[in-house]
Amino acid sequence: MKIHLFSVKALRFDGGKLIYDSNYPEVNSDETIVKVSLAGICGTDLEILQGYMSFEGVLGHEFVGVVTKSKNKDLIGKRVVGEINVGCEKCESCRKGMQRHCQNRSVLGILNRDGAFAEYLSLPEKNLHIIPDSISDKQAVFVEPIAAAFEIKEQVSLNPNWDIAIVGDGRLAQLIAMVLRTVCLNITCFGKHENKLQRLETIGLKTKIGITQEQEKKFDLVVEATGSNSGFLDAMKLVKPRGAVVLKSTIASKKNLDLTPAVVNEITLVGSRCGPFRPAIDALATKKISVDGMIESEYRLDKFKEAFEHAKKSSVLKIVLKP
Amino acid sequence: MKIHLFSVKALRFDGGKLIYDSNYPEVNSDETIVKVSLAGICGTDLEILQGYMSFEGVLGHEFVGVVTKSKNKDLIGKRVVGEINVGCEKCESCRKGMQRHCQNRSVLGILNRDGAFAEYLSLPEKNLHIIPDSISDKQAVFVEPIAAAFEIKEQVSLNPNWDIAIVGDGRLAQLIAMVLRTVCLNITCFGKHENKLQRLETIGLKTKIGITQEQEKKFDLVVEATGSNSGFLDAMKLVKPRGAVVLKSTIASKKNLDLTPAVVNEITLVGSRCGPFRPAIDALATKKISVDGMIESEYRLDKFKEAFEHAKKSSVLKIVLKP
Repeated sequence: MKIHLFSVKALRFDGGKLIYDSNYPEVNSDETIVKVSLAGICGTDLEILQGYMSFEGVLGHEFVGVVTKSKNKDLIGKRVVGEINVGCEKCESCRKGMQRHCQNRSVLGILNRDGAFAEYLSLPEKNLHIIPDSISDKQAVFVEPIAAAFEIKEQVSLNPNWDIAIVGDGRLAQLIAMVLRTVCLNITCFGKHENKLQRLETIGLKTKIGITQEQEKKFDLVVEATGSNSGFLDAMKLVKPRGAVVLKSTIASKKNLDLTPAVVNEITLVGSRCGPFRPAIDALATKKISVDGMIESEYRLDKFKEAFEHAKKSSVLKIVLKP
Repeated sequence: MKIHLFSVKALRFDGGKLIYDSNYPEVNSDETIVKVSLAGICGTDLEILQGYMSFEGVLGHEFVGVVTKSKNKDLIGKRVVGEINVGCEKCESCRKGMQRHCQNRSVLGILNRDGAFAEYLSLPEKNLHIIPDSISDKQAVFVEPIAAAFEIKEQVSLNPNWDIAIVGDGRLAQLIAMVLRTVCLNITCFGKHENKLQRLETIGLKTKIGITQEQEKKFDLVVEATGSNSGFLDAMKLVKPRGAVVLKSTIASKKNLDLTPAVVNEITLVGSRCGPFRPAIDALATKKISVDGMIESEYRLDKFKEAFEHAKKSSVLKIVLKP
């Protein structure tokens, strides 16, 4: 057994299973140290448990916390959220400000960097964004996935008159729906869960369970937010010739994906990942986006088994951990 | 045996094999009738023989010919090439001028319409383009695939300073290279055949056999023009994060294509098929594009076995049939 002078509680993945470790080494870093207040369980976390990214270490990349140590004294005591990609600051991508695509990057709780399912985490100061008082912790923990939803606006010039479909009704689909709703009027969500679809109807979306023939090839833009092969196939069914499909979730299984329809119908597929934090924070502060009611339960770190079992349930929106 | 008052020679596919038929029914149509002078064998024809599109009938969609019958008397006797998609003229796509994407369309030699490997074919007058005298038959037979290459310019705003890679060195890759070369300076072709790569070097491309690590993730735009799974994987290796891959060929096999790298690296995949004929004809007329030397052999229809065996050879550029 390793002895550490200072140790913290953390939830780490050893490549096979999650382990609650009350004796994890304290973060020792020149970076800014954040005491985690809340951390969200995301679909990517569930995929990592299935082997995605071959990650080992502390999971978690959606968080809100309070700065406890920083070279910038003004930050100490401030509530912050953090961008999760840390670039090398030397390569072409970093020089262009695309640290999110640095080939030598680390990613909080996903790649070569311990994450947010712990009492403390560290990130470079430049990754952190102060959260205004008008945004609660339970709202701020959604900034990272809302930013991912905003990435669609960075990549695609949205036309307010487009017919838009979202495939999926889960955590990410809900946030995407709210972001697209700030620009586009005609959005239909294809989901599977009555309770989740009802939530989308309250923000003005049409919702459908299952695709009928008259909906096929009718949408200018389709966002795939299920992370499943069937979601990709549904998206390809719904999109118009010459339309676009945004791939918003990694697809863990690798079944026979056929790109021939994309060629024949000249579909553009847009891979989309992490996004800009500033518009996400602004949207919460100005109440353009409401995440109220999306957190279904809060668990302590040592109750991680219950927390992950709950998060895996297909009817659930968001589960958070409170270290 | 069927008896036809007038019969023609045609090369038809019965779903299993190619058959030379000297007693094929004469085209009976209100459309414009074209006597085929030359018809090119394309990769799509070879895929149809493998079952692609479940097509049965007369193959062939690259042609040049002479109009023998038309409601427009000015057309008779004129040398023409023809756009291959025939829309219903009623649906939303057709009303927007996108007959190429009409869901009820027929496609010459590919879908519900006999093609160009015959003495005669028919197409609506609006599909035909008169070929100026300055373009020979052996050049004009390339208009359809050159148009397909020009489609890339319609879909992507090419930046002259981009680093561009073309994966493949065959018929289509050669034409794509020439089209992109009219705008972009830095083009590298990744191929397999010395003779084909040499031809590309003469028009100012860099050429490579095999991908080295230093070429990975270095290209702003990659065009996949091999029609193989390995070509797709190579394209994904070469493209920069946030770059684009143009899918210029249908991929007949459906092995485990993994789109996760497209999401993580935010790659845009652009499906691209048939293109505009006018710029293709102009490029040949103004000699911006030269196809001289690309036809390796000419066969009569009844020598189709030799012709297709020849076309299948990986070292060959273009084989044409002379009905």
